[in-house]
This record gives sequence, structure tokens and C-alpha cells, in this order.
Amino acid sequence: MTFEQAHQRVEEEIAKINLMAQPELLYQPIAYSLGSGGKRIRPSLCLMACDALGGDVNKAVFPALALEIFHNFTLLHDDIMDKDEIRRNRPTVHKKWNENVAILSGDAMQILAYQYLAKTPVEYLKPVLDVFNDTALKVCEGQQYDVDFETQDRVDVDAYITMIEYKTAVLIEASLKIGAIVAGADYETVDLFGKFGKNLGLAFQLRDDWLDTFGDEETFGKDIGSDIVNNKKTYLLISALQLAAGDLKKELNNSLFVAEDSNEDKIMKVKSIFKQLSIDELTQRQAERYYEASVAALGQLQIPDKEVFLTLAEGLLKRSK
Amino acid sequence: MTFEQAHQRVEEEIAKINLMAQPELLYQPIAYSLGSGGKRIRPSLCLMACDALGGDVNKAVFPALALEIFHNFTLLHDDIMDKDEIRRNRPTVHKKWNENVAILSGDAMQILAYQYLAKTPVEYLKPVLDVFNDTALKVCEGQQYDVDFETQDRVDVDAYITMIEYKTAVLIEASLKIGAIVAGADYETVDLFGKFGKNLGLAFQLRDDWLDTFGDEETFGKDIGSDIVNNKKTYLLISALQLAAGDLKKELNNSLFVAEDSNEDKIMKVKSIFKQLSIDELTQRQAERYYEASVAALGQLQIPDKEVFLTLAEGLLKRSK
Repeated sequence: MTFEQAHQRVEEEIAKINLMAQPELLYQPIAYSLGSGGKRIRPSLCLMACDALGGDVNKAVFPALALEIFHNFTLLHDDIMDKDEIRRNRPTVHKKWNENVAILSGDAMQILAYQYLAKTPVEYLKPVLDVFNDTALKVCEGQQYDVDFETQDRVDVDAYITMIEYKTAVLIEASLKIGAIVAGADYETVDLFGKFGKNLGLAFQLRDDWLDTFGDEETFGKDIGSDIVNNKKTYLLISALQLAAGDLKKELNNSLFVAEDSNEDKIMKVKSIFKQLSIDELTQRQAERYYEASVAALGQLQIPDKEVFLTLAEGLLKRSK
Repeated sequence: MTFEQAHQRVEEEIAKINLMAQPELLYQPIAYSLGSGGKRIRPSLCLMACDALGGDVNKAVFPALALEIFHNFTLLHDDIMDKDEIRRNRPTVHKKWNENVAILSGDAMQILAYQYLAKTPVEYLKPVLDVFNDTALKVCEGQQYDVDFETQDRVDVDAYITMIEYKTAVLIEASLKIGAIVAGADYETVDLFGKFGKNLGLAFQLRDDWLDTFGDEETFGKDIGSDIVNNKKTYLLISALQLAAGDLKKELNNSLFVAEDSNEDKIMKVKSIFKQLSIDELTQRQAERYYEASVAALGQLQIPDKEVFLTLAEGLLKRSK
């Protein structure tokens, strides 16, 4: 099963979710959030892992939906906390409705995710639920670390990697593990799929950091440089703060905390410092390292068709949007 | 097992929950919320139902904790939405920390509830999860109806009863049902325990409405009349708006929407209108009707010791705080 085939199945299943329920202000935002597209990476990977192991994909559909619903719930609540007004080219839920609606419909989405999870074939329900719960809690921890970083003077690279592991990678890891579990896989296979997913998730997030600064405005679909404008502690900035010395360090600190440049000037200056410190290559190399670790885990898996996963992983690492 | 015994066991089990985890801003608010007391009605009822059926109470402990954690999560998020600053005589989480902390630690609490739920003995996991999920979603629906009512000109009594059924009664219903399920009860027994719980929950909420207006300030522990001050559409006000006619209707509408009385004067005037319309007795009679329905369900149950439930139900109906 290719990513495209899995993706199509996921879209079909999402379209079947009936959210024409009362009260409207609870369910319409859920429909809006789930209907706003996105890459559907997590549920697709869940189906692909199940299929690759010869499992019945139908058994993976409901937990896959749970993963996608949960992911969208986290975006919905994160958008409130980050005061983001646009997501996937549309107003965020708290902007289109209001904060209370966003809080409560997000809460209901989380429960909806568990309703789909409860439809996992009963012989796999307990292990799937355990993986899902531990993962979901880590996602919250990752979000809190991310928030904590905003007010911390120094964040080291290891702490940053833990944060993106929790906030992003573990849910991708869980998606593959759950797909493998419902295919009846043994512990080692589940674990290898997990490793593939976690490292892929880390590579994916580093690529995301890289794109925000070095991506192409037109293909990226978002403003380039918003992380720089907001002094967001990404892998790029954290590395730069560690590596910069002497005049370059002064220059960087000046751009971040003193100068009142226009956004455009600030982006240009910080980007130039990043280039002088080779942050561009450093970030790409680090992303490639995780990519290679994910490919190594894939290599150890006893499955006939690894190509579908390789194609996807490569696509995610080289994506320009 | 009496309520007091169940309550003590619940407190012991809550004390065992380890929340000394990182990041602190995620886990401290959860510890604060769970440690702030409260009646522990839901988990205690869960243990009592299990015990009354001869079940092993140890099997009910984890789902009971899940019910209590979920209940406290709803309070935490409701307090943000309602902008309430005090809960159980302490600052609410969003007041003590901030809104973002309250949103995210609430989200984590919901997951924590599911972690405890997942520790339900595996043979009962699926039915317990199904009851819990359906209930949790209804609690969200109830909260949304409650919010909707604030901006609706007319709310009828039936809609109000549905709202409190969802917002309050179904979780009490679920607590008893889950206790019965893990005792291995048959469908009819589970259903009867549910009926006992739902009607008890409705009586409990009507008593709550009544206390806010006709309670005794000192024993109630909260300001009397805050519902009146806020024009809150409780059973009392909704009934009064339906029953008032002529001058009394004008007087009521004037107090609610026109007069700029002091809080004290407003409470006095509206309370006097309530008395003239016998809203006091009407509400108490309605609460008693639900109480009687709950006792009737209890009467049909095949359990040796009904006294412990009767004592509790009576206590809740006649409580003054």
C-alpha cells in the first residue's frame, strides 16, 4: 500500500464521520478542523504499517482515525495558546468562533478520538490504548516544553530535540506502532516500526524548522522567516546561539533583542548570520542523520515492500512545503 | 461499603497518584486540581456499586480514579470558559497560573483519566471504555448547551433538564454503571444502577440550583444569590419566566434586564418574586421526584444492602452545602 493509497482511504473514512450533531457549536468546529486537509501522515502511516505486515487494513482504520483526530485536536488547542490566527490558509477555530468554543470543541475532539480508538479490534484494544495514552501525554509534555522555552534564556540542543520528539515525533512513532500492533506483529517488529517513525518525525520537524527560514516562499505556502521574526527557539536559532562568538554573537543578540529592524531587515540579517555559521547545512545534516536512522530501522524490518516507506521518507525529507 | 468507607479509599488512592513529574507547569496544576478536595461522589459511587454486587473493589479503583480525574478536568476547563476565579475556596488554575497552563494541563488530565481507565481489568475494558466515552462526550454537549443558554432569550424546562442531565447526571450514572460492570453484573443490573445514578444526579443538580438562592449563606460556603445576580438560567429562573404573568412578569423582567439595583436589592426582589410563584416548593418537589425515581430504581436492584445508597441519596437531597 503506497502513501497515496493510504491517504485516499483515510480521506474516504474521514468523510464518513458524521458531525451533523447538536449542539452545533460543539460539532461544527470539529468538522471544520478535520475537513481542513493536512497531510494525513499519521493515519496513512498507521494503515501502511498494518498493510506492510500483511494485516487487515480494515482493522487499522479506526485507530488511524483516532490518531488523526487527536493530532487535529492538538493543533486546535495549540492555536489558542499560540494565538495563531491562520491554519492551512483558513482562520483558526478560536478566531472563526471564539476561545471558549475552541477549548470545548477541542475537548470533545479528544473524546471523539478515544471513541474511534475504542473500535480497535478488542484483542488489540489494551496495547493500542496504552501506546496511545503514553504518546498523547508526551505530546502535551512537548507542548509545555515548547511554551517553557519561550521564556528561558538558554535552551540547549538536547532539550530542543526532546521537545520536538515529544511534540511531533512520538505521535508518528505511535501511528506506525499501532498499525503494526493491529496486524498482530511481535514486540520487535512493533519496536522497529516505532524507531522508523520516531526518527522520521525528528527529520520531518527539523526540515520544518529549515523550511521556515530557508524555504521558498511560493512553494512553502507560509511566510518565510516568521520563526526569526518571533525569536522562536528552533534548532536553527538554538544552534546559532551556541556557535556564535565574538562580533557575530553581538550581532545576533543585537538583531534578536535590541535592534528595532523591520521584519524584512531582521530576517535578512539573522539569515546572513545563520549562513556564516553554516546553520543551513548543519540543520540539513542533522535532519539527514535522523532520516538515515529511520532508514536503518526500516532495513531491519522483515517486510516485503520497503519501497513505499522509503519513498514517503524521502519525500518528507526533501519536501519544500 | 458505606459512602464514607468508599470516600476514604478514594482519598487514599488519589494520594498515591504521582504527579511530581516534568514539566512542572503541566503536572503541578493537575496535582493542585485533584488535591483540592471535593465530595468525590463519582469515584465513591463506582466503588460502592462494585462492592454492593459482591465484586472485587480493587478492580473498580482505577476506573473510579478515571471518573474523578475526568470530572476535575471538566471543572478546570469550565472555570476558564466561565471566567470563574474561585473553586473550593482557592484560586482556579487559570487564575493561579494562566489560561494556557489551564488549557494544556486540563488536556493532560483528560489523558491521565484514560490512562487510569486503561488499567480496568482487560475483560471489562471495552464496555467500560464505551460507557466512559459516550458519557464524556455528553458532558461536553451539556456544557455547550449551558453556554448556549446564556445568549438564548427563551429556554424551556425540558431543554434545561437535558442540559443538567448531560452536564452533571450522566457522569454520576456512568460511575455506578462502571462499578457494576467491573463487578461482572448483567445488563439489567447495570442499567438499574445507571437509572439510580442519573436520577440522583438530576436531584443533586436541582438541589444545587435551589441552594444558590434559598440556601443558608454560612453553611453553603458560597455567596447566596450569585445565580440571580448573573441572570443564570437555572431551573428556578426558567420556571419563573414561564409561570410569571401580568405585573409579576413585568416586575421580573424589570429586575433582570432594566433596573440597575445593587446585587443585594436584586437578589431580594427576584427571591420575593420566586416566593410568590412558589418556585421554592416547585424546585424542591421536582428534586424530590427525581430522588423518588432514583429510589425506585434502587428498589428493583437485587442487592443485599440498599441502605448505604439510600443514606447517601437522602444526604445529597437534603444537603445544605
